[in-house]
Amino acid sequence: MYKLTKIEGGVCAAEGFYADGVSAGLKSGAAKDMAFVYSDTLCEIAATFTTNKMTAAPIRHFKAKGEFQTNFVLINSKNANAMTGKAGIKDIDEILATLPQNVKNPVMSSTGVIGVRLPKEKIIAGAKLFDLSKQNSATAAEAIMTTDTFSKQIAYEIELADGGVFHIGAMAKGAGMINPAMATMLCFITTDANVSKEAMQKILNKNVETTFNAASVDGDTSTNDTVMLLSNAKSGTYNEEAFTVALHNIMLFLAREMVRDGEGATKLVTYEVSGAKDNKDAQIVAKALTNSLLVKTALYGEDPNWGRIASTVGASGALSYEDTLTISFENVCVYKKGKLYFDAEMEKKASEIMKMDSFTIYCDLGIADGYFTAFGCDLGYEYVKINADYRT
Amino acid sequence: MYKLTKIEGGVCAAEGFYADGVSAGLKSGAAKDMAFVYSDTLCEIAATFTTNKMTAAPIRHFKAKGEFQTNFVLINSKNANAMTGKAGIKDIDEILATLPQNVKNPVMSSTGVIGVRLPKEKIIAGAKLFDLSKQNSATAAEAIMTTDTFSKQIAYEIELADGGVFHIGAMAKGAGMINPAMATMLCFITTDANVSKEAMQKILNKNVETTFNAASVDGDTSTNDTVMLLSNAKSGTYNEEAFTVALHNIMLFLAREMVRDGEGATKLVTYEVSGAKDNKDAQIVAKALTNSLLVKTALYGEDPNWGRIASTVGASGALSYEDTLTISFENVCVYKKGKLYFDAEMEKKASEIMKMDSFTIYCDLGIADGYFTAFGCDLGYEYVKINADYRT
Repeated sequence: MYKLTKIEGGVCAAEGFYADGVSAGLKSGAAKDMAFVYSDTLCEIAATFTTNKMTAAPIRHFKAKGEFQTNFVLINSKNANAMTGKAGIKDIDEILATLPQNVKNPVMSSTGVIGVRLPKEKIIAGAKLFDLSKQNSATAAEAIMTTDTFSKQIAYEIELADGGVFHIGAMAKGAGMINPAMATMLCFITTDANVSKEAMQKILNKNVETTFNAASVDGDTSTNDTVMLLSNAKSGTYNEEAFTVALHNIMLFLAREMVRDGEGATKLVTYEVSGAKDNKDAQIVAKALTNSLLVKTALYGEDPNWGRIASTVGASGALSYEDTLTISFENVCVYKKGKLYFDAEMEKKASEIMKMDSFTIYCDLGIADGYFTAFGCDLGYEYVKINADYRT
Repeated sequence: MYKLTKIEGGVCAAEGFYADGVSAGLKSGAAKDMAFVYSDTLCEIAATFTTNKMTAAPIRHFKAKGEFQTNFVLINSKNANAMTGKAGIKDIDEILATLPQNVKNPVMSSTGVIGVRLPKEKIIAGAKLFDLSKQNSATAAEAIMTTDTFSKQIAYEIELADGGVFHIGAMAKGAGMINPAMATMLCFITTDANVSKEAMQKILNKNVETTFNAASVDGDTSTNDTVMLLSNAKSGTYNEEAFTVALHNIMLFLAREMVRDGEGATKLVTYEVSGAKDNKDAQIVAKALTNSLLVKTALYGEDPNWGRIASTVGASGALSYEDTLTISFENVCVYKKGKLYFDAEMEKKASEIMKMDSFTIYCDLGIADGYFTAFGCDLGYEYVKINADYRT
């Protein structure tokens, strides 16, 4: 038995964690572009990274450290330090070497343009502005943004039956892009739960599947996608079920927020796929729907185009049959198991639903029990404008 | 030894083939919307169809016939007869039953809106307008169009060393879409070569991989994609190598034309991937590049964004390394095996290349000998306009 309560504080909600954002001159004007997350005691750290084989330097640097504990994450925006080769990793070592004495085994995370070396001097100077006693989680969440239009943070307090209390908090950025080739998704999660590295890694891996990996803005997997989870055990307490549920809520919230903030997106659409041969097939269908250009443009046009949804299901590679497939927009069924169900009245109702900025499309494949939910957005002129904008 | 010569005549170039297009009132005004291909002697027929599991009724009707010879293909546009269930197949039987006596085992092909029953009476009436003595290949090529902006046909005469002569001709439509959910690619190929059904099917299957299946406008595989190849053996002669080369030229030409005509497309881009672990990996990379939203929008913006290309290669699932990858826009190398190669001069040269409406991007993965070439186009405002346009 446990109680979950949403609280303020983002990555500083858990005991002993500090964060802030500063302006190092990487972005124009006085915009914040560097952040840190610091714990006053050493942390276990679990992480998941992009599956893109062109992993950015910060990810290679992290992986090369093997088993380690840390108390510091340095984050910069505007430059992803990707495709920078060995020099990119060397730049990280040089930067981290300049951090204060009480920083142990620091790691770095970057997001921004691909293929340009880090502006080392500016970053070293920016790090000197960090005040490790600050708990400005909101400013940190802002500093890691690239073209997000709003910062993303969330935290929970978990109270256990025996009175024990622990916290999980997080910040994330992603799904907004102005400069060409800007890397996408970063998420930093902190907790004072007394949880082992192995347990954290296991729960993190499991939750990534149905949250961040279920979200798609444009189907492109960047060179820098990162989720880091740090625990300093300061609460002295833990409960696996409560921790898993809270972490899932946090990751699901952030994944949805990223898609909602997708460039040029006007709609957050949830695709609930059920009745598939198995969960893997349901996932294949759900992801195909989030990535289909024809479905995304139909969403933008608020056109209840179930034919494109059916075609995308059929093309996905998953097992599917015309005769057992049912498609609904919220509670309006537009296609049912081989019957052309779509008349003027249906179309009107479905169109009304599509005018909302968030709704669910249900696809029941009618074969077995496979189930998966994914999150996508529409594709409109703004996406093209943002991404075709010549900018080097 | 053989000689290939491009000739006029499209699907009527081969001896004994006839074709025409008529207006049945499916499209607005007097636009042609129904076509036929007829041979005055029975044909062997080989075909490849979409891998989409929601195969349209005409494809199910064809497959249900098992082994057969035919002398007639009926084609209509505006309606794909897809997601129409058993009734859709029944409609085909009723329509085909009204054709003249000399038509044997006719098959049907449709393209257009998904999820609406065929306008049977109009189609039956339209078929009565067919004059089987006509050889109007251009009109037939026009009648099968949906939102193509130009018709697509091509033919070759093949002269063998021993003086024997045969012909292969073809027409196709595809990659243009106005109405939501309009089905995409149809191709009809005729030949008087004295080739067996088995040989034709084998050569067709092999050539589809590097031509139609290497072309992508928006990555969506329709419910109706079809290639039909009919041979009536009237030339009495055949040569496997010559036939294969001519067929490849024809299919490659039509595949490229389809992409060039892709909705809203302003650029036809050829992605030549080499140095992959194997051909399968090269194909994975090439297709990923044609389908990446970020690469496509960069093409539209004429932005030499090699970072997105590298990221797409890395995300594709194929084996790839930063240190062995080389990327070039035509003869301008923008990234070479781990070295950041891109300066202001490079950028200027690469931008100039991207202003052309057709060019090649080379990706050498530098691992082994895997090779594949794919064709894609850019993604601009027009694509969104065409596909988001509310139309039911």
